[in-house]
Amino acid sequence: MPNPLAIPSPELIARLGTIVGPAHALGADDERQAAYLVEPRGKYRGRTPLVLRPGSTAEVAAIAAACNEARVALVPQSGNTGLVGGQTPGEDGAEIVLSLGRLRQIRGVDQARTSMIVEAGLTLAEVRAAAEREGRLFPLSMASEGSCQIGGNLATNAGGVGVLAHGNARQQVLGLEVVLADGRVWDGLRTLKKDNTGYDLRDLFIGCEGTLGIITAAALKLVPRPAEVATAFAALSRLEDVLALFQHAEAMAGGALTAFEFLPRFGIEVVTQHVPGARDPFPDPHPWYVLLDISGSTADGTAERTALTLMAEAAAAGIVADATVADSLARARALWRLREAMSEAQKHAGGSIKHDISVPVPLLPAFIAGAGCVVERVCPGARPMPFGHFGDGNVHYNVSQPRDMDTARFLALWQPMQDAVHGLVVEMGGSISAEHGIGRMKRDELARVKSAVELDLMRSLKAALDPNGILNPGRVL
Amino acid sequence: MPNPLAIPSPELIARLGTIVGPAHALGADDERQAAYLVEPRGKYRGRTPLVLRPGSTAEVAAIAAACNEARVALVPQSGNTGLVGGQTPGEDGAEIVLSLGRLRQIRGVDQARTSMIVEAGLTLAEVRAAAEREGRLFPLSMASEGSCQIGGNLATNAGGVGVLAHGNARQQVLGLEVVLADGRVWDGLRTLKKDNTGYDLRDLFIGCEGTLGIITAAALKLVPRPAEVATAFAALSRLEDVLALFQHAEAMAGGALTAFEFLPRFGIEVVTQHVPGARDPFPDPHPWYVLLDISGSTADGTAERTALTLMAEAAAAGIVADATVADSLARARALWRLREAMSEAQKHAGGSIKHDISVPVPLLPAFIAGAGCVVERVCPGARPMPFGHFGDGNVHYNVSQPRDMDTARFLALWQPMQDAVHGLVVEMGGSISAEHGIGRMKRDELARVKSAVELDLMRSLKAALDPNGILNPGRVL
Repeated sequence: MPNPLAIPSPELIARLGTIVGPAHALGADDERQAAYLVEPRGKYRGRTPLVLRPGSTAEVAAIAAACNEARVALVPQSGNTGLVGGQTPGEDGAEIVLSLGRLRQIRGVDQARTSMIVEAGLTLAEVRAAAEREGRLFPLSMASEGSCQIGGNLATNAGGVGVLAHGNARQQVLGLEVVLADGRVWDGLRTLKKDNTGYDLRDLFIGCEGTLGIITAAALKLVPRPAEVATAFAALSRLEDVLALFQHAEAMAGGALTAFEFLPRFGIEVVTQHVPGARDPFPDPHPWYVLLDISGSTADGTAERTALTLMAEAAAAGIVADATVADSLARARALWRLREAMSEAQKHAGGSIKHDISVPVPLLPAFIAGAGCVVERVCPGARPMPFGHFGDGNVHYNVSQPRDMDTARFLALWQPMQDAVHGLVVEMGGSISAEHGIGRMKRDELARVKSAVELDLMRSLKAALDPNGILNPGRVL
Repeated sequence: MPNPLAIPSPELIARLGTIVGPAHALGADDERQAAYLVEPRGKYRGRTPLVLRPGSTAEVAAIAAACNEARVALVPQSGNTGLVGGQTPGEDGAEIVLSLGRLRQIRGVDQARTSMIVEAGLTLAEVRAAAEREGRLFPLSMASEGSCQIGGNLATNAGGVGVLAHGNARQQVLGLEVVLADGRVWDGLRTLKKDNTGYDLRDLFIGCEGTLGIITAAALKLVPRPAEVATAFAALSRLEDVLALFQHAEAMAGGALTAFEFLPRFGIEVVTQHVPGARDPFPDPHPWYVLLDISGSTADGTAERTALTLMAEAAAAGIVADATVADSLARARALWRLREAMSEAQKHAGGSIKHDISVPVPLLPAFIAGAGCVVERVCPGARPMPFGHFGDGNVHYNVSQPRDMDTARFLALWQPMQDAVHGLVVEMGGSISAEHGIGRMKRDELARVKSAVELDLMRSLKAALDPNGILNPGRVL
């Protein structure tokens, strides 16, 4: 184990302020600190003597070197949208926050427009827009893309709605620039498709949640934009039908199936009741809904024809109870809005206990049925709202409070509820964090679900790359 | 630095023999050793006191534990087809060879047939056939697939002809089982599509060339088999046209473009002269040729129509001088045979100095032109035969000897030739080993092309995972 970390001294704080300049060193009494101390849901809230906003990789490197020498903890933060407490400083006020938000350059796009080098502080939406200006697609996409930043997306190996066709963040990256714990900079900004020279350092830093190094820039893969996208929305009676529809869609469309999301009736209810303009696409209520995209590389109507055929065949097979294929971009956006507004709208149903799990896709119906039972046992009357990336086996298994229960009393059940749900996940060979990471929230649980060998391997890597343990301590491990 | 490695004692050799049983411990005087001591080209040839052929992961683990305790070097070997000297024992006779060839179980296929768990010693062809029996595709594919083994494919992050659409070996893996240097076993055999719980250990072992751990089994991704594949062969006048055709094909077919290989006139000449039954598809000679596949998920003729349209448009634009689209499976196989027979047939042109490089795809024409100049400077009259995975930016830049030169004299130019070619690669931001790895052959060169920071990171990881340095020493690092 490394020596214990130190409280930042006034001398260190002054020295760090010199590195970034007074306008970008926010001390404990600076009210601009507020935005960096609490994450949007208010679940994690901390204190810090200093928020640093470096303007360059060199400044990040100088900060790391100084903190490493002084044995002072650094908490890297990008868009501050993480859901597991990885990016907020601890409550003891000893951790310095390192914001990547001022690293906002697009450093370049290669001649063939197959890669783009961007800095960590651009929002995901800005990165996607920059790709679009080049006539290309950066396929990582999620509801928070207007505020989450690419550095954080990569540090947490973010998922989202584009994973089915394109993989998660890791699959979108060709190279990285990383500031190491001791302030050295690893320039791994490669843009080659194939390069078998040495160990895969890139993928070690992606998903390390800031505990092994600080990602300051990345070479991202750009892919062709689809020439056409058909969006379909289907109503289904049973979860088994959702699985059957997925398998049918995959067999028919292959790689052209670019999204396959599912939501429950309860989700459609909260969205249509609380989101202005949101309307149920169907006259009758149905237990389950699927939203899917089929993309095409030529604008010849193949995508729409495939979607229509798929829906017709699924209806004939009794899999789908009702279905619609969007006949305009506006209609497609309205259907997607039903899915994207779900997390927001769920707030209107009171307190919610959230899980981000995955199981093998064929087990999803059994998981959701089983989870319903364990939830009812922990809190009778609680209302599960499972939704998300069915095609990836990834469910946001959120549970809303019983209608008339006190919210605080319900949220006090978070731990037993989570234990029960995760217990089922582990039994089914699933993951207790499919896309949100470990952070502080699931650190103790990680120790329970991983083997001693795996934890020890992780600790060895942490000790090798951050021997003083200054990078995001207490997160992940 | 770890302590120096030890010469295996008679006691250790006896103990190791007990682990695998006498039939599978081949001593220095056992003639069955021969197959393990030299790789097929004869470029690397070594000695060993012992070849071990364990029959289970537990036996591999016991061997590693004993060698680690005794500080004795282990050289893991799978199909023994590696091209950089990674898998043959050294010449000093101090390294023990650990063959994975008896680990040949298919441990299981999941219910949805999206993953298959296989042991390290199955050949790639056997893995592909097993996937096919499930009605699925394992897309890794290369000329040596009849003899290379999946364990070695993963340890070296192998490439091949399926990379364009499916990525190299790394992208085909969901999880691994790895024996660590000290004999502990990491069970990372996960089959989930999404799992963000902790560091990416998997990708550290993939491509480590046996220096960080010994892969004993893997959970492989299976994908849908294409319902149809159209194969086209085109003749082109200029390398710039090859690039233009690639860009046109990618824009038109997107992800349906599943192979894009190129070869030079010289390649067609040696193949048609020396491979029985191989025929030039065109009446006139042309400087360059492209072989491409377009795949479709429904058997409705779309792939063939796309290939025909692509060729017609490219001909109309003056990019393609002549072209043919295979009208039968036999014809498609014959066209592929022209490409696959190239390495073999090149032997008939005398000695060959080989490079496995990549540069950004748009720079390929400039690279090949420039490399022609530097080759001519090192050895006037030498005949470059650049071919390979154009769509990945990966050229097998092989150079055949001048027609009347002494072969040994030509091969003596390997180092200056390689230095000159690799110098150009590095200038262009490319890789000196796109798919074959580092092994012993490029170890010293690695130290020249990597930054001190990157080498130091790699050394830290090696020291963390193999503190005694027993795993494949002197390879990679």
